[in-house]
Amino acid sequence: MNRIITIGREFGSGGRELGRRLSEELGFAYYDQEIISEIAQRTEMSEQYVQSIVEHQPVFSFPIHIGRSFYPAPTPVFDQSMAVYQEQARIITEMAQKSDCVIVGRCADYILKEHEPFRMFVYADMESKIKRCLEKASEEEEMTDKELKQHILGIDKKRAKYYQFYTGHKWGDKLNFDLCINTSRTIIKEIVPAVAKLFGN
Amino acid sequence: MNRIITIGREFGSGGRELGRRLSEELGFAYYDQEIISEIAQRTEMSEQYVQSIVEHQPVFSFPIHIGRSFYPAPTPVFDQSMAVYQEQARIITEMAQKSDCVIVGRCADYILKEHEPFRMFVYADMESKIKRCLEKASEEEEMTDKELKQHILGIDKKRAKYYQFYTGHKWGDKLNFDLCINTSRTIIKEIVPAVAKLFGN
Repeated sequence: MNRIITIGREFGSGGRELGRRLSEELGFAYYDQEIISEIAQRTEMSEQYVQSIVEHQPVFSFPIHIGRSFYPAPTPVFDQSMAVYQEQARIITEMAQKSDCVIVGRCADYILKEHEPFRMFVYADMESKIKRCLEKASEEEEMTDKELKQHILGIDKKRAKYYQFYTGHKWGDKLNFDLCINTSRTIIKEIVPAVAKLFGN
Repeated sequence: MNRIITIGREFGSGGRELGRRLSEELGFAYYDQEIISEIAQRTEMSEQYVQSIVEHQPVFSFPIHIGRSFYPAPTPVFDQSMAVYQEQARIITEMAQKSDCVIVGRCADYILKEHEPFRMFVYADMESKIKRCLEKASEEEEMTDKELKQHILGIDKKRAKYYQFYTGHKWGDKLNFDLCINTSRTIIKEIVPAVAKLFGN
């Protein structure tokens, strides 16, 4: 069976960098944005639109009143979100069957649970997440620390809701992971060889 | 400055085994029960009595009513608990100053925070903790799985209360650790070389 590493991560924690470096060190395939591209190709939606869907949990419309109970009414947008999730699950399963790989985000730990992936979660304290974001040249660089903090919290709140919706589990709960790495006091490049050694390298 | 590794752990997770093996791999000193022995020697209490004190948070007596507010009344037992904690803190600090070391439990991560130790937390799911306890020849082996579960939960509840009382932090919160290792699907002996590599070995 292929060796599969899934990486959940807080925004700004460097989880993506860790995943990419780890895949290079191990010679494993690396999947991250590739999943979005593949969904876009198969569903004939734009990558940008797929991205916007996978960043949110599905939205219900106003609840329907049947007897004494309320039920959320599925909407076309809701159906589309579910379809994208199902396509995503299919793609991730295909990737896992193809070769050893590292998959970042996208509920891959849950989708592949039958394959018993090695599940990592990467996190950090707010100060170092802000620092890491500021070091990258991106739209965030125009923000103040306070705005950046709100931005980071907002993204992780969406990730938590999305993960909870599709898996029924609390996002970032250490019991759902084999290894949790706090990058606050770490240079990611320097710990990759040690993490790789867990896989016999 | 000496390299210091502190290990917090859930009962039955194998944190002590991991600490011991890691110290052997790295050639670091290892402190666990040694701390209790040293407290006993310095305070002239029996090891058994010290053990019973460090397994509980201090107990307050019935609150004193002063004006409209209630205050807990310190008791001789409370004073003794605090004295033992202070002695423990002194001993742990001395150990950290002596040489590179691995220290298991005893709020060492908090006591040594100025030394910036590498803080690990070892945990596991209940099923594997029960299995690990059953494999050890001890009093627990006479218990049913249900009784053993209660025993494990009881010990960890005490640890959580003790930790919370002295540090003000939630026990096992991943943000207070650099690395959290779930041993549920792991053979401890096999991961030690990878963990040791974090320290340049």
